Amino acid sequence: MKCRRCRQPAVIEVRRHNAGFCRDCFLHHCREQVRRTIDDFGMIGPGERVLVAVSGGKDSLALWDILGDLGVDADGLYLGLGIGEYSGDSGRYARAYAEGRGAKLVEIDLPADVGFDIPTGARVAHRAPCSACGLSKRHLFNQAAVDGGYDVLATGHNLDDEAAVLFGNVLRWSTDYLGRQLPVLPAGNGFVRKVKPLVRLGERESAAYCVLAGIDYQVEECPMAEGNRHLGYKEALNAVEERSPGSKHTFYFGFLERASPLFTPEARAERDELRPCARCGTPTPGDICAFCRLVERAAT
Amino acid sequence: MKCRRCRQPAVIEVRRHNAGFCRDCFLHHCREQVRRTIDDFGMIGPGERVLVAVSGGKDSLALWDILGDLGVDADGLYLGLGIGEYSGDSGRYARAYAEGRGAKLVEIDLPADVGFDIPTGARVAHRAPCSACGLSKRHLFNQAAVDGGYDVLATGHNLDDEAAVLFGNVLRWSTDYLGRQLPVLPAGNGFVRKVKPLVRLGERESAAYCVLAGIDYQVEECPMAEGNRHLGYKEALNAVEERSPGSKHTFYFGFLERASPLFTPEARAERDELRPCARCGTPTPGDICAFCRLVERAAT
Repeated sequence: MKCRRCRQPAVIEVRRHNAGFCRDCFLHHCREQVRRTIDDFGMIGPGERVLVAVSGGKDSLALWDILGDLGVDADGLYLGLGIGEYSGDSGRYARAYAEGRGAKLVEIDLPADVGFDIPTGARVAHRAPCSACGLSKRHLFNQAAVDGGYDVLATGHNLDDEAAVLFGNVLRWSTDYLGRQLPVLPAGNGFVRKVKPLVRLGERESAAYCVLAGIDYQVEECPMAEGNRHLGYKEALNAVEERSPGSKHTFYFGFLERASPLFTPEARAERDELRPCARCGTPTPGDICAFCRLVERAAT
Repeated sequence: MKCRRCRQPAVIEVRRHNAGFCRDCFLHHCREQVRRTIDDFGMIGPGERVLVAVSGGKDSLALWDILGDLGVDADGLYLGLGIGEYSGDSGRYARAYAEGRGAKLVEIDLPADVGFDIPTGARVAHRAPCSACGLSKRHLFNQAAVDGGYDVLATGHNLDDEAAVLFGNVLRWSTDYLGRQLPVLPAGNGFVRKVKPLVRLGERESAAYCVLAGIDYQVEECPMAEGNRHLGYKEALNAVEERSPGSKHTFYFGFLERASPLFTPEARAERDELRPCARCGTPTPGDICAFCRLVERAAT
């Protein structure tokens, strides 16, 4: 197979695009997909400061790298989750990338700075680890972006992630989540703008990007995620994609184009009913937000 | 495991309901699921005459049997598709059931009465066999119901079928199909009311119903359906259901409750733009309906 752009021998095939690429053209292709996503959805304006949530995995490091190449002013944010060896290794990959490129990495350590680790927080709050983790990330990522004066928080969610989340939301017809599953969530109510510039890239592509760009990343999956529903949804969609390449893209972008607008009014109405958390000011449907309750339980 | 109703030893477990049943209580359970579906969705009114589309498979024979037990005035309709040995066998199962119960079976033979079989029709019309077959069934089932003076046409679509169709419609966000995927389509515009009373039963349950009720049925899958997308969607959903029993039920009934109303206005608007086919009077977006075009091509 030859490279679609330059006709040199291809080193990677992207079945969804029915195309092969050589190394340089593949890196170019990835950058162009991200540039197009940023433009199409108005994710980042000229001169805006971006904070990239960096886990040390392939997606977030590829995102940080591509944003740098595209000339975006992007610092990294690493949140240490206290998940044993996995977190230790992840932090090292994030730091190594930052040092190698002379990029700025903001660090927060959940155990040291907030007082609990994910395994403990999940146990005391009677939450699934992925739920406690997601809750903590949403809160602390936004807090760090606000504190650091950033305009935008960028996360490395890729097409596979978003399609799997969408599948889960659709399986349960969680109309409120469906109304909020957007690649850009506008700023407001104490939140900075949240963007997902990798939604045009599959996870195989972000991994290949890192390999071909010479970026070392944490290859291990988080040990706490093993067997969770999200991975089951990914597997089911992988089986569909295998038979019909492009199914995930059609599923996710078809949703954004034709179905998402039907669900947003309900989500907007729910958002308008939130009030500030009495402790931290985060909008919440109750008096104290879920993150402050998690912190409280984990501290006792 | 014991029967949920009578505490005798169970012969079948339904994981979705987290329950086991003995033979008699399982047959009762199936009838109650169908009775409830008919009541909840207002499928069949008192004294209405029902035509059941009978393929000779487990679903349609279970449906016909249950409708009889529930005291519904239901005749059968068998459409011979001309798919070699498969069709020959299917017809024999349908006739054997009718004879055994003294029930009336209306028969149409696609090759003899309309002039083509499914393999030929699909080839000349450049359609997938399942597409030519579905088109022919929709047309001829309705025609037979209208000609016979029936109020309702009932088909044996089960929960697995409907969940897989819904998954396909959602993967493509076919908003028009989503607006029409209902367990009851009201009469009007030359169509009798169409109902799917088995949507609360999985295919494993309709098969078990036939086995336990002593009904012989066509076990073979249609040879033309092999490898089609619909079966791929079923497999993907089966993997999800395996991890989380009840997922298909939540997916399908959650759709009906919370999402379907968002899609129906578009479908209704499209329906209102249809005009009668110049040949047969069926509502169509063009001059000649797709079935009449299929007949025309297959005849030449």
